[in-house]
Amino acid sequence: MQRDRGERHVLQYQQTLMYGRYTQELGAYAKEEAARLREDGALRRSAGVRSQTPEQLEYEKDPCAKCQLCTSRCQRFLISRVGEDWIFLILLGLVMALVSWVMDYTIAFCQQAQKWMYGGLDSNMLLQYLAWVTYPVVLITFSAGFTQILAPQAVGSGIPEMKTILRGVVLKEYLTFKTFVAKVIGLTCALGSGMPLGKEGPFVHVASLCAALLSKFMALFGGIYMLKEEPFEGNKNELRNTEMLSAACAVGVGCCFAAPIGGVLFSIEVTSTFFAVRNYWRGFFAATFSAFIFRVLAVWNKDEETITALFKTRFRLDFPFDLQELPAFAVLGIASGFGGALFVYLNRLIVESMRKQKTINKFLLKKRLVYPALVTLLVSTLTFPPGFGQFMAGQLTQHESLVALFDNRTWYKQGVAEEFEYASHPQAWKHPQVSVFITLLLFIVMKFWMSAVATTMPVPCGAFMPVFLIGAAFGRLVGESMAAVFPEGIHTDSTVYPIVPGGYAVVGAAALSGAVTHTVSTAVIVFELTGQISHILPVMIAVILANAVAQSLQPSLYDSIIRIQKLPYLPELGWGQEKYNIRVEDIMVRDVRHITLSSTYRDLQEALLAGHLKTLALVESRESMILLGSIERSQLQSLLSEQLGRTRRLEYLRERAQDNGAHVPSFSQDSSPKASRGVRFLDGPDVEDDMSTAEIAEWEEQQLDESVNFNNCKIDPAPFQLVERTSLHKTHTIFSLLGLDHAYVTSTGRLVGVVSLKELRKAIEGSVTVTGVKVRPPLASFRDSGTSSSVSEVTELHKLWSRHRSLSLPREPNLPDLGDQLEQPSEGSLVNETDCTELSSQNSPLHTEDQSEITYADATPSEDHRSELPCDSDSAHHLEDFSETASEDGLVQNDELACEGSPSIADDQPE
Amino acid sequence: MQRDRGERHVLQYQQTLMYGRYTQELGAYAKEEAARLREDGALRRSAGVRSQTPEQLEYEKDPCAKCQLCTSRCQRFLISRVGEDWIFLILLGLVMALVSWVMDYTIAFCQQAQKWMYGGLDSNMLLQYLAWVTYPVVLITFSAGFTQILAPQAVGSGIPEMKTILRGVVLKEYLTFKTFVAKVIGLTCALGSGMPLGKEGPFVHVASLCAALLSKFMALFGGIYMLKEEPFEGNKNELRNTEMLSAACAVGVGCCFAAPIGGVLFSIEVTSTFFAVRNYWRGFFAATFSAFIFRVLAVWNKDEETITALFKTRFRLDFPFDLQELPAFAVLGIASGFGGALFVYLNRLIVESMRKQKTINKFLLKKRLVYPALVTLLVSTLTFPPGFGQFMAGQLTQHESLVALFDNRTWYKQGVAEEFEYASHPQAWKHPQVSVFITLLLFIVMKFWMSAVATTMPVPCGAFMPVFLIGAAFGRLVGESMAAVFPEGIHTDSTVYPIVPGGYAVVGAAALSGAVTHTVSTAVIVFELTGQISHILPVMIAVILANAVAQSLQPSLYDSIIRIQKLPYLPELGWGQEKYNIRVEDIMVRDVRHITLSSTYRDLQEALLAGHLKTLALVESRESMILLGSIERSQLQSLLSEQLGRTRRLEYLRERAQDNGAHVPSFSQDSSPKASRGVRFLDGPDVEDDMSTAEIAEWEEQQLDESVNFNNCKIDPAPFQLVERTSLHKTHTIFSLLGLDHAYVTSTGRLVGVVSLKELRKAIEGSVTVTGVKVRPPLASFRDSGTSSSVSEVTELHKLWSRHRSLSLPREPNLPDLGDQLEQPSEGSLVNETDCTELSSQNSPLHTEDQSEITYADATPSEDHRSELPCDSDSAHHLEDFSETASEDGLVQNDELACEGSPSIADDQPE
Repeated sequence: MQRDRGERHVLQYQQTLMYGRYTQELGAYAKEEAARLREDGALRRSAGVRSQTPEQLEYEKDPCAKCQLCTSRCQRFLISRVGEDWIFLILLGLVMALVSWVMDYTIAFCQQAQKWMYGGLDSNMLLQYLAWVTYPVVLITFSAGFTQILAPQAVGSGIPEMKTILRGVVLKEYLTFKTFVAKVIGLTCALGSGMPLGKEGPFVHVASLCAALLSKFMALFGGIYMLKEEPFEGNKNELRNTEMLSAACAVGVGCCFAAPIGGVLFSIEVTSTFFAVRNYWRGFFAATFSAFIFRVLAVWNKDEETITALFKTRFRLDFPFDLQELPAFAVLGIASGFGGALFVYLNRLIVESMRKQKTINKFLLKKRLVYPALVTLLVSTLTFPPGFGQFMAGQLTQHESLVALFDNRTWYKQGVAEEFEYASHPQAWKHPQVSVFITLLLFIVMKFWMSAVATTMPVPCGAFMPVFLIGAAFGRLVGESMAAVFPEGIHTDSTVYPIVPGGYAVVGAAALSGAVTHTVSTAVIVFELTGQISHILPVMIAVILANAVAQSLQPSLYDSIIRIQKLPYLPELGWGQEKYNIRVEDIMVRDVRHITLSSTYRDLQEALLAGHLKTLALVESRESMILLGSIERSQLQSLLSEQLGRTRRLEYLRERAQDNGAHVPSFSQDSSPKASRGVRFLDGPDVEDDMSTAEIAEWEEQQLDESVNFNNCKIDPAPFQLVERTSLHKTHTIFSLLGLDHAYVTSTGRLVGVVSLKELRKAIEGSVTVTGVKVRPPLASFRDSGTSSSVSEVTELHKLWSRHRSLSLPREPNLPDLGDQLEQPSEGSLVNETDCTELSSQNSPLHTEDQSEITYADATPSEDHRSELPCDSDSAHHLEDFSETASEDGLVQNDELACEGSPSIADDQPE
Repeated sequence: MQRDRGERHVLQYQQTLMYGRYTQELGAYAKEEAARLREDGALRRSAGVRSQTPEQLEYEKDPCAKCQLCTSRCQRFLISRVGEDWIFLILLGLVMALVSWVMDYTIAFCQQAQKWMYGGLDSNMLLQYLAWVTYPVVLITFSAGFTQILAPQAVGSGIPEMKTILRGVVLKEYLTFKTFVAKVIGLTCALGSGMPLGKEGPFVHVASLCAALLSKFMALFGGIYMLKEEPFEGNKNELRNTEMLSAACAVGVGCCFAAPIGGVLFSIEVTSTFFAVRNYWRGFFAATFSAFIFRVLAVWNKDEETITALFKTRFRLDFPFDLQELPAFAVLGIASGFGGALFVYLNRLIVESMRKQKTINKFLLKKRLVYPALVTLLVSTLTFPPGFGQFMAGQLTQHESLVALFDNRTWYKQGVAEEFEYASHPQAWKHPQVSVFITLLLFIVMKFWMSAVATTMPVPCGAFMPVFLIGAAFGRLVGESMAAVFPEGIHTDSTVYPIVPGGYAVVGAAALSGAVTHTVSTAVIVFELTGQISHILPVMIAVILANAVAQSLQPSLYDSIIRIQKLPYLPELGWGQEKYNIRVEDIMVRDVRHITLSSTYRDLQEALLAGHLKTLALVESRESMILLGSIERSQLQSLLSEQLGRTRRLEYLRERAQDNGAHVPSFSQDSSPKASRGVRFLDGPDVEDDMSTAEIAEWEEQQLDESVNFNNCKIDPAPFQLVERTSLHKTHTIFSLLGLDHAYVTSTGRLVGVVSLKELRKAIEGSVTVTGVKVRPPLASFRDSGTSSSVSEVTELHKLWSRHRSLSLPREPNLPDLGDQLEQPSEGSLVNETDCTELSSQNSPLHTEDQSEITYADATPSEDHRSELPCDSDSAHHLEDFSETASEDGLVQNDELACEGSPSIADDQPE
């Protein structure tokens, strides 16, 4: 199990219409390999070509050498390794505070500029409209274009990706400087446009980028940030990096809202499954420092007199709310729960329906900037203040709206327009003809779908803030209604305590954002944002109820995006008895790819082509099946390529030449005209390699029959093991805790099966019928009968899974190619046709056998070895075939069941 | 590794002078066994006695049967298993809120009664004094006596024990109804006495007790709370129980302070190393519900108008503090850090010095109630209001003091006495002759040592609240000083914002309590307690600085108590590069107790007597050493006792009788006069067992030579494995994550060593020189040169450990008895002599071999088997010898190094 933490999947980014998507690299490799071999084969047929040289296996080692130079020079300047940690956290906090503040400043400037333009043109309505609309369209288009060109990985929130990264998956190019620049500039432009977009999620990503870059930077000075490669312990930095990233997430939220505690908690809730308490401390430290600097900058800039909350409220302290108001707060919470689930559903529906509309999609994919421009045009047209915007406070920015909604006066009773002294924001809510209730209602409804649509644009953007705002408006609506119903307050004693609708706004904001993100720490965030904690109980009650409802109906927004993006994340276990009854033996794959101590290179080749996991099991013998350890794919591939490589062939030729002089072996007679059979002595020991293709093939056949020499092979002697009776619950816990990718199942030392993330995910989804649920809440049953379109598919999966369980017998390793069966289009595939060619080929597993899976590529630098993997023409053909047949029907995988003749199932979309 | 979570140690409670102590059961067993065998041998010598019958092995199974009856009857009344979880949490919250409220009410009543008595006797100073002093002495004595009689486990805080339990150790009798009653009543009396004791820690224990009892209660209704035993997965409830206990801890803190968020966070920080985020939700839910009910009860009782904070503050919102005050807050934080470390040190020093004073200790141990009575007498004499108490606000209860300290006026400037309108509490701080600074200073100094002393009394009590109060007073002192220095405030602009000393009090309270407990969530607790979050940044900064300082100097109070109580808890890793350089091969024990497939019962017996871990490794053969699995001690013991048991002997006699009729074997001639050698047929197949001792011994010898039949033995086929190159850091993480007790070290399937908690603990302590440090803070170096008396010992350990590393060669399994060497008294042993006889015998390891360790007994019901373990007279003598020789020098253990002739080291006290 030593290596398991190190077995990270590298996923490559692929730009799709709305959310980007990470795809499995090995699939892509398979396609490339097929193409290469096809080409290669063609070449070979026409002429004898040199095999590729093993020199290609070398990695660039220059950066490392550079580092070491710097190290020796700068090490003395570092206080100590312990100090480095603190310096790192302080630097991170400082940089992020600066970024956050500068970004806020720029965004405010952009928004002011729009208002100024709009205000300056008040003579002409049309010009005003054009100015109002063009400005955001330009900004958003620029943001989308800039991001796409520089680093498409910067698109979207960032929390789903960070969640996946902290789970142990490497997302390629996700933490680079280019992405940092793209994210920061893209986000500033996107938010500057005044669209209903948020800053929180992207800031988590920005902070992580910052931490990653800072680590690299500090590595220049040596110390713990230096990457060192060591067998079986090469990932000593990995733990540390995870810890730093986890602190960075806290900093991201913390300096975005000046909410250090809420930031730490929120980042824990949205990114972790198991949290190391020792990281808590770091998160707190860095987030506090960052929030402090962020607010100090505001003071220095004379925006504020002293450090206070971002959206300071001024509710009365002595009697914040009446006990009898609690039912209203509870109702607000429950309604927010439904609203939150609806938001997540709507967001996913938009993405999925856009992907399904093939004509539109095809067009939009070509002109990627059209979609964001259109959305922006629509949204800004609707908020045009002299137009429809007058009924929904369209002229206010998010910040202004929120300040107004948290206002501590009652709009309904006092009439909004007259009394407001500070700023004119709340005036926007008061329309001469329309009551404030209508304005609020329109605001909520319009912003709701606008936010859901806007967050699907391919720009860096989050959904937290828009949702927070909608929640606040909803709370204000409920509060104003309460104030209208009980104008004298509910309290019956001597003192009259009127109802405070602003308190409802705070509660609503926390509840709705909590429902969408499935977190309870939004409660803490609102306290820190408003600087008042007097409404703690209503907030907590509403947030918990909202969570209970929302979690029963939908996954969290982040889990939803994880599914849309198909990131390899293990869903949470639900809470039900059934989990305790499922055991590893019910879900494990019994036909484990393995090699024995006496395996030949041919066995190795077969195992490599057939297997899907990053490691192969090494057993004593096929009879005893005693598990000795596991070997990485890349290790075996290099063994194999060495065995069949040019060096070895040259050696063979040399030996043969020494033996028989210039005698030419003539076992293969179908020579190409150009093939000269002689071995020419060039300079001393060098021989020229001019064996014909057929000769090479024959030679390779010989080589393959030799038995493998494991001497120079790194073997992990203790891969993670489970027993057949281990429960699903425990397996899930262990996988989550240790970030495993797979575990072997043994029975008294004998290897009997293997469980990978995929089986586990299937088992969980099959058993709870839904994914992403954290704690199975009391309303969980609603979800099963919910509006989600994915239920039928899940049931299908469940059936399959049950069948599998009943039929789980060891199967023969080599079955005929099932490619033809795969041609049937899979029902319920949510991938549009346009994507298909690209996608399916990237995801197509190497399925010479019955149990091919989505294949995760490995993270080791030795990936390059794969391009050295020799494939005989059969398997090359096979790869070709597959990439052709499978390219029609999206992400098709043949399940373990496929070998029993069942139709193919697109089970990579488990929703 | 499947069993590892289940391998819980059962520690038995032992009442000592101040803190109770849990001790290792097997040690006690060894002593009992020695005594029994000695007695037994004597008896045997005089007369042939019947061996004990295997019927003693039976467990009571009635409760289970009862449960099942109830189950079938009540199951239909339960909504669903999912619902149960929620019902459980709601019930837990409700019960705890009620307990908390009733307790608060009773405590307030007790304190009022004291005041009333004191007030009523104001004519006579002596009577007044007697009343003032007698009342608390009686209450505390009652509390101590009641607790001791009913359940001595209820003594003390409870957080250290809960931390240990959540780590996977079973503390016997710790979660029973008796303990619950003792804790609740004892705590109420202790707090009612007005001594500087706290409620928080004990409430964590009470809530856990409540959860455990509620679980049992709900088990009556079937469902998930039913305990079911299953091979290798019998602990399905264990995970769930851990989750429930972890929620209970949150509830405990939450309903104690009406601080749900702080409660959840605090309980996470003090009890967990790795936290499952899914539990977070439960904790939040239960704690919120509990806090809500707790505060609602106050409203219903007309104590409050509506739900507000417990210690509501009224600081101004618009300008809570000036940016330039931050240095003062930082200084306050740093000073609190030093204060916190001093408090922990003082507390431990008191316990240790009391234990060292052998004469006093002997007396006090006999008269256990004298110590608390004396302490109470001293403390209450000093706080007697007309006496010294007038200079330190002695007449105020903790609650009143805290309300006064959080007051938002400046005492210094305005003169305290005149203006206070609500309650007369702050008046107590104003002495006619003495300035408020002196009063505060005296209060701080006196309360500081009083709290440190009072919390060592053997009553249920915590230290959080007293420390919190001292912190508040210290903050107030700093605040008043600041107000004196800057009477017009620091702010230079138009408006004058005077300094708010109450804010400093809040900051000080959070900082000092954070420093003592090594938590940052005290920040959240103060926000919830005061209902104001305006001072968030000063509080966070102070708390973080206080933590940084305190963590560098001392372990947390809870870790300190863990050490005093010698609970088997794994210390946290410090942060330093060196951890990455230590590998498992450096710390593992190479001579692993193991049995092979061809072992005889004699091998088994030897392994059992020599081994120390709960499981023994099963290897293929002594040559191959391929690890096949592990077998529990208890399993092997029952195998052995079956082999040597009476049933088998009778069978043997019967067979022999059938073979040779009444032929008497005569290989042993030294018969006792009474011994009749014939086998009489009683009724049909029954034979009477009247073999002589010598005959039995001979028969047993024969039996022992048979090879073991593992057929009916449960073997864990996949014990947790590491490789030699696994780093200490990773090992620590894995042990913490999975709650392991030990792990085998393998090299390509071959067993090469074993690492247990003990080795790991030693390695960590040896390498970081200090224990209990969480994040190695910048000031960590202070700690090494700190005042702690244990440094030299640690250095000794470190040396040993380094030597061990360099000398770690496989050793011969059987070395001569080292008991004599152990007779040298060990330096630095902190155990007093009186304890020794009891302690050492309970802890004395079975050390026939070189690597005997503290032996943890197992948690399975088959402990009883051990009384069946046959010992040949040699080993029995050995046990006797050891318990005699070792009884002189406390907890002596012979290290792995002892075999190399080094003097014995008392390494169970690693401080």
